[in-house]
Amino acid sequence: MATRSSTPRRAPTRRAAAEGRSSVPRRRSGKAERAVPLPLVAANDESGVAPTPRRNRGRLPARRATASVASASRVRYAVIGLGHIAQVAILPAFAQAAQNSVLAALVSDDPEKLRKLSRRYGVRRVCSYDDADELFESGEVDAVYITLPNSMHREYTERAARAGLHVLCEKPMAVTSEDCERMIEVTRENDVRLMIAYRLHFERGNLEAAEMAHSGTLGDLRFFSSNFSMQVAPENFRSSRKLGGGPLYDIGIYCINAARAAFAAEPTAVLATAVTRRDQRFREIPETVAVMMKFPQERIASFTCSFGGADRSAYEIVGTKGSITLDPAYEYAQGVEYVLRLGKRKREKRYEKSDQFAPELLYFSNCLLHDNEPEPSGEEGIADVRVIEALNRSVETGKWVSPELPQRRRRPTLRQEIRRPGIQPPPLVGGVHSATM
Amino acid sequence: MATRSSTPRRAPTRRAAAEGRSSVPRRRSGKAERAVPLPLVAANDESGVAPTPRRNRGRLPARRATASVASASRVRYAVIGLGHIAQVAILPAFAQAAQNSVLAALVSDDPEKLRKLSRRYGVRRVCSYDDADELFESGEVDAVYITLPNSMHREYTERAARAGLHVLCEKPMAVTSEDCERMIEVTRENDVRLMIAYRLHFERGNLEAAEMAHSGTLGDLRFFSSNFSMQVAPENFRSSRKLGGGPLYDIGIYCINAARAAFAAEPTAVLATAVTRRDQRFREIPETVAVMMKFPQERIASFTCSFGGADRSAYEIVGTKGSITLDPAYEYAQGVEYVLRLGKRKREKRYEKSDQFAPELLYFSNCLLHDNEPEPSGEEGIADVRVIEALNRSVETGKWVSPELPQRRRRPTLRQEIRRPGIQPPPLVGGVHSATM
Repeated sequence: MATRSSTPRRAPTRRAAAEGRSSVPRRRSGKAERAVPLPLVAANDESGVAPTPRRNRGRLPARRATASVASASRVRYAVIGLGHIAQVAILPAFAQAAQNSVLAALVSDDPEKLRKLSRRYGVRRVCSYDDADELFESGEVDAVYITLPNSMHREYTERAARAGLHVLCEKPMAVTSEDCERMIEVTRENDVRLMIAYRLHFERGNLEAAEMAHSGTLGDLRFFSSNFSMQVAPENFRSSRKLGGGPLYDIGIYCINAARAAFAAEPTAVLATAVTRRDQRFREIPETVAVMMKFPQERIASFTCSFGGADRSAYEIVGTKGSITLDPAYEYAQGVEYVLRLGKRKREKRYEKSDQFAPELLYFSNCLLHDNEPEPSGEEGIADVRVIEALNRSVETGKWVSPELPQRRRRPTLRQEIRRPGIQPPPLVGGVHSATM
Repeated sequence: MATRSSTPRRAPTRRAAAEGRSSVPRRRSGKAERAVPLPLVAANDESGVAPTPRRNRGRLPARRATASVASASRVRYAVIGLGHIAQVAILPAFAQAAQNSVLAALVSDDPEKLRKLSRRYGVRRVCSYDDADELFESGEVDAVYITLPNSMHREYTERAARAGLHVLCEKPMAVTSEDCERMIEVTRENDVRLMIAYRLHFERGNLEAAEMAHSGTLGDLRFFSSNFSMQVAPENFRSSRKLGGGPLYDIGIYCINAARAAFAAEPTAVLATAVTRRDQRFREIPETVAVMMKFPQERIASFTCSFGGADRSAYEIVGTKGSITLDPAYEYAQGVEYVLRLGKRKREKRYEKSDQFAPELLYFSNCLLHDNEPEPSGEEGIADVRVIEALNRSVETGKWVSPELPQRRRRPTLRQEIRRPGIQPPPLVGGVHSATM
């Protein structure tokens, strides 16, 4: 299958080579950017990245396609889409990722957002979606952070990759696995990096849960269960089928990803049932979806995700010797807490709210600057989308569906932790409202 | 359907009338039994029982079939089966139910259990299973508490009912709905009462959860989820298919019952998947079963029950405005705790361990003495068994199965609460071990 290709991936395409793009290091703009010595400092020295050999430190990676950022110590990002998550989390995160990441441009069709946010963050380069290609080709940015509605992820990944820009894309990676495959292809063809923004792959509470699952602390694993629920706001793109909304794509994906991480495996068969009700929010999408997933070694995961229930955000991994319950589990606006039960012993742990977006920037920029393959990759992103596609088929047929997923070699581990203090979200601009009621 | 019959139920059968049983009040034995004035004192005055009209208080109920206990102020029980739950919970419970309940006889095939437990509890009448009919006809007991393996519930209900004894039977009511129907019929034919021992129908934490679900406190209900898991001990009857064991019958039934109570409704379609593994405990039964249930009004319940996972015992009800999470939820060996979340508010409540068996005795005896129909009734018991049968069919076919269940009129409410202090379980005798590892 396309996503499993073991053929060499790094050769520049003929087109890119013909245009000579990757051989011309981009010039950087913006006098405020001060070089910081490499390697970047993460919460720990490992952060999931293979260390750069000492003799190479501070030197430019040899890889041609990263030439655009290789001459710099900081990656210049264009943030594409200025909705709720961009405003409350992604844009503010650059302040804590400044050692290797710069917010260099803003892309939106809303002049008010561009005006106010460029002023707030001191970003001089702004443009509309129509003019994005010009920005991408301008040499002013090295990478994009795509935080558009899900249905637009593929298009902007293609446009950015063709311009030689690296892509950090919000999850879900796309609405269809076909789109995901194309995103993987186009970034390979253009020899740029692709990362899917699974923020919890850097969050300590979630990584500790995975660690306990993998290390045998909980014994042999038996089952996983989760509830993720919120009251989605009306007129939100999450309620639009056309834009790729719905509880599975938006929040169910967290449960799927957590179960896959817990079991370090891919589901072999999945089943879902969906309900809806008369509510303007649920004209195009289901309100609630309940899911079961069979995993290898006779393990089972189940979860319920809902856009019509009160806030819940929890999961539980149960093994033969113990269990861990994360509650809240999936949040970025509050800290993660868990209860570990081993026999009669019960240990509670609470992490203060942290900035879960700066770590993504720090890590992805580090990958670009050190020529490492980022993980969570496109292969991680497409796995969840394939599961969602299978679940959607199951909702239609009422039957078990087997998604065909290659086993992944890399899974989230504590080595990936990067921690930055929580931030106070700034006021929203441009008619953006909270995603929930 | 047979269980919904609205025909008069109280007329003595011809056989019973011919034998003249119900017209001959039983003589009571045992000088230690002191009469206590009716009505019995419960944790509150309501305890789910319609109050006896004042003019009738202290007088004998008119109903002929209860003549056997009508002349007494205390109901004399034979406990049938002296396994783990009888030893740690049921036998000790009589001390706190002494105002209207007496432990009058013990039935077992184990001479050591009979000898030691009769001495411990001062019970002079003991007998083997073979001699049970003689005990039942002896006039020395008014009711039986059946705590045998599930597959034997029907037989002993029939034997007791035919002898004119009232029946308090452990859950699951039986292994098949056919058995349950016969149990309902035989108790009606013989004009005796039948109650299924759903101890949580009297437990405050669980009743508060149901109350919040029904009262609108949580808003309109959306979904229910639960995990119930333990490491079942080897050589336990719970692992025997022939004896009616397995995780659905033994612990899944709690999840089913809690979901039905939460939604005050019956599931319209159910689905299950079961896994097992090489382990002597799981040669005849599955290790873990995961379940989904569709309820009216687009509500969904799901749960996982396992005999091979570490201890978990929790459920959650989520509505549009809030949620309640009970954890632990189903235990009798520890207190029930819950977290109620309403908007941003979070309230935690913890109930100390209580004796959940004395309330069953107090309530059932009260029903007998006041001529009230007990609830949880046989109709409540058969509902769960029908759901389990449908789930077992679903495990075989991998498809949704619709159990045919009449809507019930009575549901657990706070009015049913009866509270007695927790007890220290006495040492086990006769080679009985803990049911869990």
